[in-house]
Amino acid sequence: MPGQHTWKEIQSQPEVWREVLAGVRRRADEIETFFKDPRPVEEIVVLGCGSSYYLSLSAAHAFQRFLGLPARAVPSSEGIFYPEAVFPKDRVFLAVGVSRSGETTETLVALRRAAEFPNGRLASVSCHEESGLGELGGLHLALTAGAETSVVMTRSFSSMLLALQAVAALAAGDRERLELLSSLPDLAPSVLEASRPVVEAVGADKSFRRFVFLGSGPLYGIASEAMLKIKEMALEESEAYHSLEYRHGPKSVVDRSTLVVSLMSAAAEVEEKELLKELTSLSARTMVVGPDGSEAAAADGDWFIPLPEADLDDWARALVMVLPGQLLAYQRAVSKGLDPDRPQNLSHVVRLGL
Amino acid sequence: MPGQHTWKEIQSQPEVWREVLAGVRRRADEIETFFKDPRPVEEIVVLGCGSSYYLSLSAAHAFQRFLGLPARAVPSSEGIFYPEAVFPKDRVFLAVGVSRSGETTETLVALRRAAEFPNGRLASVSCHEESGLGELGGLHLALTAGAETSVVMTRSFSSMLLALQAVAALAAGDRERLELLSSLPDLAPSVLEASRPVVEAVGADKSFRRFVFLGSGPLYGIASEAMLKIKEMALEESEAYHSLEYRHGPKSVVDRSTLVVSLMSAAAEVEEKELLKELTSLSARTMVVGPDGSEAAAADGDWFIPLPEADLDDWARALVMVLPGQLLAYQRAVSKGLDPDRPQNLSHVVRLGL
Repeated sequence: MPGQHTWKEIQSQPEVWREVLAGVRRRADEIETFFKDPRPVEEIVVLGCGSSYYLSLSAAHAFQRFLGLPARAVPSSEGIFYPEAVFPKDRVFLAVGVSRSGETTETLVALRRAAEFPNGRLASVSCHEESGLGELGGLHLALTAGAETSVVMTRSFSSMLLALQAVAALAAGDRERLELLSSLPDLAPSVLEASRPVVEAVGADKSFRRFVFLGSGPLYGIASEAMLKIKEMALEESEAYHSLEYRHGPKSVVDRSTLVVSLMSAAAEVEEKELLKELTSLSARTMVVGPDGSEAAAADGDWFIPLPEADLDDWARALVMVLPGQLLAYQRAVSKGLDPDRPQNLSHVVRLGL
Repeated sequence: MPGQHTWKEIQSQPEVWREVLAGVRRRADEIETFFKDPRPVEEIVVLGCGSSYYLSLSAAHAFQRFLGLPARAVPSSEGIFYPEAVFPKDRVFLAVGVSRSGETTETLVALRRAAEFPNGRLASVSCHEESGLGELGGLHLALTAGAETSVVMTRSFSSMLLALQAVAALAAGDRERLELLSSLPDLAPSVLEASRPVVEAVGADKSFRRFVFLGSGPLYGIASEAMLKIKEMALEESEAYHSLEYRHGPKSVVDRSTLVVSLMSAAAEVEEKELLKELTSLSARTMVVGPDGSEAAAADGDWFIPLPEADLDDWARALVMVLPGQLLAYQRAVSKGLDPDRPQNLSHVVRLGL
């Protein structure tokens, strides 16, 4: 079966998330202490490449929101070539490296660059027990349950995001939020199930020539990842925007061959619905992923994938909203006769001579 | 003539930049003082929508590099819906609003949100003497020379970027960098001239179906703006990435119909050249914008637009690198029989009922 590894890895996520959370919980005390000792962290920079950068966008949002510290994500290459525009000069910062293999050259080099700052501390996450990232020191999480056979990242993406969200909750001493994250593995199967007929229909629809993913706040990184999955697996034109940004120029190219996928947030729900109405009037077709209760509001759209909980906050919502994008990309690839396990032009780890 | 306003506004930039710099210089003392008095700025958040967000990306880079303070750009909508994940809790921050009209709803609301923080201060830049942004208080720059008739932003983009770079130099007490910026209006005409034959050839080449713009550091915002120009004026598929990010997934869709435009940086020059070689081997065609001396190295590429100064630093380079993207979009539109002055689906100001 083409794409069997990718398919299995997508479907395994609920179980893998449980293992990831159990692993983080086992180290809860150590993680809580790490952020204060020996020097309290005052700012956070999360570094990754490709999918790892996109999950860093969502993770950085959680760090700033939960901890009240300035936090942002940057591509690892920026940390290498523009360290003075990325790392702060005068306060203790935590550079968090994200890499599935733990061997991505740019992320290793960027973390070494951060370590040269006297005010820099290190943390990292990967999916392998032994890796270059793990050897750099500082706090390291090796999420072996998230490791993958496929070249394209799916469960490693959600696993590393979940682990960083849990770390942010622990660092903030917010056990309630950790409980909320712990409920997500139970919600995931119904999202996988509800996505199936929708992505099969859309995946087979040959009239689409452009896939646009919109998300606000912590959902922007998820929209970006869906954009990348569509490219990597299905070789289609795809883009991602902060939801309301789409009005400021990009909407000019909207037409009937455009599928706009809206990852609905709680924070900007009203405005996102207004935007969808406008895009529908410009003849775009739409797919909404949102809480079950918003179904009526999404009725103007062409497809709707419900999340089982209506009151899921945007940070928790981010994780389950990874699933429809992965499935859509997989299904689109299979419909086109492509093998999601064998993406064109790509390799498992990007190693450079830096 | 179709696109006459856009054409005139693009060509007027050298002269407009002189006026903008003269205006900023006249207020040099006031600007220097503003950053220290009454409460020294400790962090900077630059807010804008669409093109104004993209120029904010480059401006924030300059603020952090010149001032040594944490600085970042975020879309205005993020400041509205996720203020706690955007504005810092415990330090004096400057929220800088960027809007051509000074009336963009999201930017006005985001700045009002920032003003509700006891530790927030305000600054803003627009191209009109009277505007909602100007009435919010704090430091306001009204760059009337940058105002435009066309819906699509061209000289307003470069004017607001230049003004913010000059403000960053002044705030840092860096008069040398201000001199460097002052040399740019003299360099611009040769870049406009050198771009012309290249954008005419590429603009008329009907075999292109995808335009990709790559830039590192302060050039990423410029790449993003070129992406948007191509969409707005020429209705073509277009994307922008931090240069080295392109390897981490997006390159999977590269083919002969892909034009990759590389805005070469000084910081990552070696790696960007390696990347171009790889993309050429995947059958992409390439256009390089870079200092004159790098011509030999760019010889593998299909087109080359030289910058007259070989030792232009990346922050100064950003401004002149705006020009080829604007001209390419203009020329592509005209070649397709579109009118750049009348972009599809867009309006001059985005006003919302927020």
